[in-house]
Amino acid sequence: MIKVGIIGAGRIGKVHAESISKYVSNAVVEAIADPLMSEKTRKWAKELGIQNIFTNHEDILNNKDIQAVLVCSSTDTHSQMSIEAAKAGKHVFCEKPIDHDLERIKKVLDVVEESGVKFQVGFNRRFDHNFKAVKKAVVDGTIGEPHIIKITSRDPLAPPAEYVKVSGGMFLDMTIHDFDMVRYLSGSEVVEVYAMGNVLVDEAIGEAGDIDTAIITMKLENGALAVIDNSREAAYGYDQRAEVFGSKGSVSVSNDKSSTMVMSLKDGVHTEKPLYFFLERYMQSFSDEIKEFIEAIVNDTPVPVSGIDGLKPVLIGLAAKRSLIEGRPVKLSEMK
Amino acid sequence: MIKVGIIGAGRIGKVHAESISKYVSNAVVEAIADPLMSEKTRKWAKELGIQNIFTNHEDILNNKDIQAVLVCSSTDTHSQMSIEAAKAGKHVFCEKPIDHDLERIKKVLDVVEESGVKFQVGFNRRFDHNFKAVKKAVVDGTIGEPHIIKITSRDPLAPPAEYVKVSGGMFLDMTIHDFDMVRYLSGSEVVEVYAMGNVLVDEAIGEAGDIDTAIITMKLENGALAVIDNSREAAYGYDQRAEVFGSKGSVSVSNDKSSTMVMSLKDGVHTEKPLYFFLERYMQSFSDEIKEFIEAIVNDTPVPVSGIDGLKPVLIGLAAKRSLIEGRPVKLSEMK
Amino acid sequence: MIKVGIIGAGRIGKVHAESISKYVSNAVVEAIADPLMSEKTRKWAKELGIQNIFTNHEDILNNKDIQAVLVCSSTDTHSQMSIEAAKAGKHVFCEKPIDHDLERIKKVLDVVEESGVKFQVGFNRRFDHNFKAVKKAVVDGTIGEPHIIKITSRDPLAPPAEYVKVSGGMFLDMTIHDFDMVRYLSGSEVVEVYAMGNVLVDEAIGEAGDIDTAIITMKLENGALAVIDNSREAAYGYDQRAEVFGSKGSVSVSNDKSSTMVMSLKDGVHTEKPLYFFLERYMQSFSDEIKEFIEAIVNDTPVPVSGIDGLKPVLIGLAAKRSLIEGRPVKLSEMK
Amino acid sequence: MIKVGIIGAGRIGKVHAESISKYVSNAVVEAIADPLMSEKTRKWAKELGIQNIFTNHEDILNNKDIQAVLVCSSTDTHSQMSIEAAKAGKHVFCEKPIDHDLERIKKVLDVVEESGVKFQVGFNRRFDHNFKAVKKAVVDGTIGEPHIIKITSRDPLAPPAEYVKVSGGMFLDMTIHDFDMVRYLSGSEVVEVYAMGNVLVDEAIGEAGDIDTAIITMKLENGALAVIDNSREAAYGYDQRAEVFGSKGSVSVSNDKSSTMVMSLKDGVHTEKPLYFFLERYMQSFSDEIKEFIEAIVNDTPVPVSGIDGLKPVLIGLAAKRSLIEGRPVKLSEMK
Repeated sequence: MIKVGIIGAGRIGKVHAESISKYVSNAVVEAIADPLMSEKTRKWAKELGIQNIFTNHEDILNNKDIQAVLVCSSTDTHSQMSIEAAKAGKHVFCEKPIDHDLERIKKVLDVVEESGVKFQVGFNRRFDHNFKAVKKAVVDGTIGEPHIIKITSRDPLAPPAEYVKVSGGMFLDMTIHDFDMVRYLSGSEVVEVYAMGNVLVDEAIGEAGDIDTAIITMKLENGALAVIDNSREAAYGYDQRAEVFGSKGSVSVSNDKSSTMVMSLKDGVHTEKPLYFFLERYMQSFSDEIKEFIEAIVNDTPVPVSGIDGLKPVLIGLAAKRSLIEGRPVKLSEMK
Repeated sequence: MIKVGIIGAGRIGKVHAESISKYVSNAVVEAIADPLMSEKTRKWAKELGIQNIFTNHEDILNNKDIQAVLVCSSTDTHSQMSIEAAKAGKHVFCEKPIDHDLERIKKVLDVVEESGVKFQVGFNRRFDHNFKAVKKAVVDGTIGEPHIIKITSRDPLAPPAEYVKVSGGMFLDMTIHDFDMVRYLSGSEVVEVYAMGNVLVDEAIGEAGDIDTAIITMKLENGALAVIDNSREAAYGYDQRAEVFGSKGSVSVSNDKSSTMVMSLKDGVHTEKPLYFFLERYMQSFSDEIKEFIEAIVNDTPVPVSGIDGLKPVLIGLAAKRSLIEGRPVKLSEMK
Repeated sequence: MIKVGIIGAGRIGKVHAESISKYVSNAVVEAIADPLMSEKTRKWAKELGIQNIFTNHEDILNNKDIQAVLVCSSTDTHSQMSIEAAKAGKHVFCEKPIDHDLERIKKVLDVVEESGVKFQVGFNRRFDHNFKAVKKAVVDGTIGEPHIIKITSRDPLAPPAEYVKVSGGMFLDMTIHDFDMVRYLSGSEVVEVYAMGNVLVDEAIGEAGDIDTAIITMKLENGALAVIDNSREAAYGYDQRAEVFGSKGSVSVSNDKSSTMVMSLKDGVHTEKPLYFFLERYMQSFSDEIKEFIEAIVNDTPVPVSGIDGLKPVLIGLAAKRSLIEGRPVKLSEMK
Repeated sequence: MIKVGIIGAGRIGKVHAESISKYVSNAVVEAIADPLMSEKTRKWAKELGIQNIFTNHEDILNNKDIQAVLVCSSTDTHSQMSIEAAKAGKHVFCEKPIDHDLERIKKVLDVVEESGVKFQVGFNRRFDHNFKAVKKAVVDGTIGEPHIIKITSRDPLAPPAEYVKVSGGMFLDMTIHDFDMVRYLSGSEVVEVYAMGNVLVDEAIGEAGDIDTAIITMKLENGALAVIDNSREAAYGYDQRAEVFGSKGSVSVSNDKSSTMVMSLKDGVHTEKPLYFFLERYMQSFSDEIKEFIEAIVNDTPVPVSGIDGLKPVLIGLAAKRSLIEGRPVKLSEMK
């Protein structure tokens, strides 16, 4: 039984706490820490059976019983918390992105290596049943050599401009998952990126210095080409699709829905919309990523999403940002 | 080049005339006859290049150049016209049903046999791309031994009560195609029928002595079970589906649509309705059945839908009628 | 927090115990009892945190803290256990069927009424996301007045003949869920049944006095017609579909799959098979039915599946059995 | 009745001749000309009822009865034939592309304008039932303002390297249809193009100086972004999909298939592959484009695909070519 401490009791911290208590039979949430620990959250934690509720994350790091820490704090503290936890000898699961700054990410990876702890990054979509089915078809060779990778990723509702300002920009905040998918599904590395973007959803996003609509194309090391299309707001909900086209065929996945219902009426044939947003859509993947993290600790095997897997999408995102600003394709090798 | 005469210039007669001129390269419509030949129809026939336009069908039968006759007159004259045409030495394509009366059907089959002409019955759905795909999976053994045959057949709009009165009843007018499909798809014969029906669409149909909604179950010679569900009126249009479930799996077909469009909006995901009615849905089958009829003449091979294939569905329909009236399953062997 | 005792630690008893501990936040499994309590099961129960593990169900009934009992014992003891539990003042959730004998079921309902406890029957499919979507479209009036109800229900693998012998026959063992669905989806009562069946899957089932393939048709009180098709073995897995066709349109649901994957290859386009069997397919419904049972206790509101809902499908099943034997439609009113 | 002359009796010339005779009731093919008129083609033309069979296209231009000419000769003669036909006062339907050279295209458009004849370009996909459904949803405003346009276009079999050499390259030969679709579906003009390509299907194509796999992104005048993905060879056949995503939702179309068959077997669920290639897939559009061309002549209304519509995709294709060579986004305004 692995005792886990969670740093950050926001939305994703709560998701992990509940997942662990329901689905991860060989782990228990021993403590949760958040500087803004509200009464409501405190009550929720108690009901979930969490023994230790802290406002200072150091209380988790100082707890000898805790072997693993989940870094679920605000993005700008991910790298610092990861470093502290690794130094305290805790295995670390860090929510994405590790940081927006490459140097700070490298620092984290260095500390992790020195400490000899496990370090997994929260790219949960790798654990999603749909994306796993695509990956399997690629790995099994069923579709042959990958030629074209396509990702469609659209959110149901644009975030407020306030959030946009501190988000690191759409590429680091939202597309970062899709960059990870390109690497995961293709089994190859991105060597060049070209990004086109525009503000079509909400002018306030433009005023905040960001875009809300984009198409990003990539050249991969294995010769394949990849494309991501993003929108901050799809009227019909969370749109999460992927396709890998290869020399022997194509494999694709589309959206999950709340039922298989088909309604045939005078005005047409109707089906359900996609599941609303990431909490509805990816819940299964959130528990599975933690299950595998715990397994890696228990069996002392490599984690399924490494520190490098955490670094690379940030690198691609920064290249995409530069491409957008400079209006030209940018090689990953340019980004130092 | 086979010269064809068409008896009856109503809707289906016109469909065949146009089909032949467009799609049947080795046949030509030499003449068309209808006692009510309107000016409009006459004009249409001329534009289609039909040389001979008659009001008396005997003018067709007396034409030595004409080798084949399509009986497209009103249902109550099908058997008489077929007999006359066969006696005149013409090959006969007869629209379904041959007759509502078994004795008259048998008379037709006898005359046909004596005359040695080809005789094909207009069960066009056997030539439909969807139903052919089901049949192929059954014949190829892909789904193993058939266990359950299911047919859904619903019209987009109930006919007027006036029509219902002379139609022979829903089983002989509408379900007759589905009875044919059960035989065609199963490759077996019906031995017993049980019919449940009700008037749920239009009371006037009930007052005309008929039903508008039915479920008919059948036991087949090979041990399989079959079920047809019918409605005279589906709000969303013409619903034409079939499934054969067997020892190795299942094959099914659903409705054709005017496009593959998928519209994803705030209020749901929407697709097209089925093609409106039989003229839209089955046009390809109407030309293919005639193509194969002409081929059978040219190559002197058996027609794809025989006189027996015309008789059997009427027999099943009459048994279903009796079952409905007497409220019990009826064996085909009871029907003389 | 409702304390629950579970009588029977077989497959379904375990499913409920695990469901409650994961998903039912206001209930706890206080005790479990099974005369054959194996070491393995005992270990499982301990790991799940169940405090009391008994071999005698009376230990549950005598426990004052326990407010609700789940009857998950073998079918032939359902009615007796329910009676004892009700007399002990416990709210009862009873797995289906209550009994194969109408008199014994009525006895249970009488005792329940006298005791004033809640009594819910385990027709879990009513809580399934797909069937609920159909029900909603019917209740909302979206598809108008129901005319035709269709249920397809096929198991992935025929049971051994040994099981068949004690199962009460396919209608009471398997179709009983479908009879419940007909009532649930139509919102009406069955008045007459006609059943056709055959042994097409496994001769041993025939030798055991049962059938493995059936089509059952029903007339409903509201005039609608219903049909169920059953097979004990579908090569492609568990096939669970339903459709309600009404005056304004149709609503249907098809099978759940493990992913939305579409694979397009040289030999065709391929998708996943249905989820394997009821544990994979209906897990969500097993927890939701208990959630609602607990809610009914907590809020003292009516249970969502009543004793009458438990009795009626058995009545329909017995009528179907008689119909099959006597080869005629059987009115429910004949069954006393 | 419009008398039509066809210049070029290759594959597409024959398609148009047959389409006209079957589906275009107010036009007749009066003559066909081809310098390589084979005996087989001559026989085919006679059987189709074409009166005049020439080896010299001037015999068509000199025929006073002929009002309209279809330019179906080899691509390198399209512009010259169009100019000659326009000067001879014939209305011109010209297969795509008009030319690979912008100056020669402009010359054609100038001559057409001086001559006052109708001039339509053969972008048949605009008449396809699927793409029309997308266009309608855009024009009706159902999906709001277009934000992202996506086209997938993959051929079933790579052409021989010999063909590739004279084809003008993939962008002018194959993608040109997709460039037209971007303009048609978005209702806007391309302002900038960025093309990525590779040789992944057949090295011989690379040796012939072309690519076989590409992703092309575009910025449009209305702010929307567009992307096309192309492959010269999809193992599963001709892949023709499109999506327009906008402020109110998304509309997409997928491939047509030869039947709606679904086969459920032990090894999975299987459906048909897409229709094989453009002759199978787009036959309906080939007749509809000619129907509308003839209508425009008869009613003296604008043709549905203008000379400018013929020029623009070539311009985009040349820009894409330059983008690929120079490895940078290219503005349309750079192309003179």
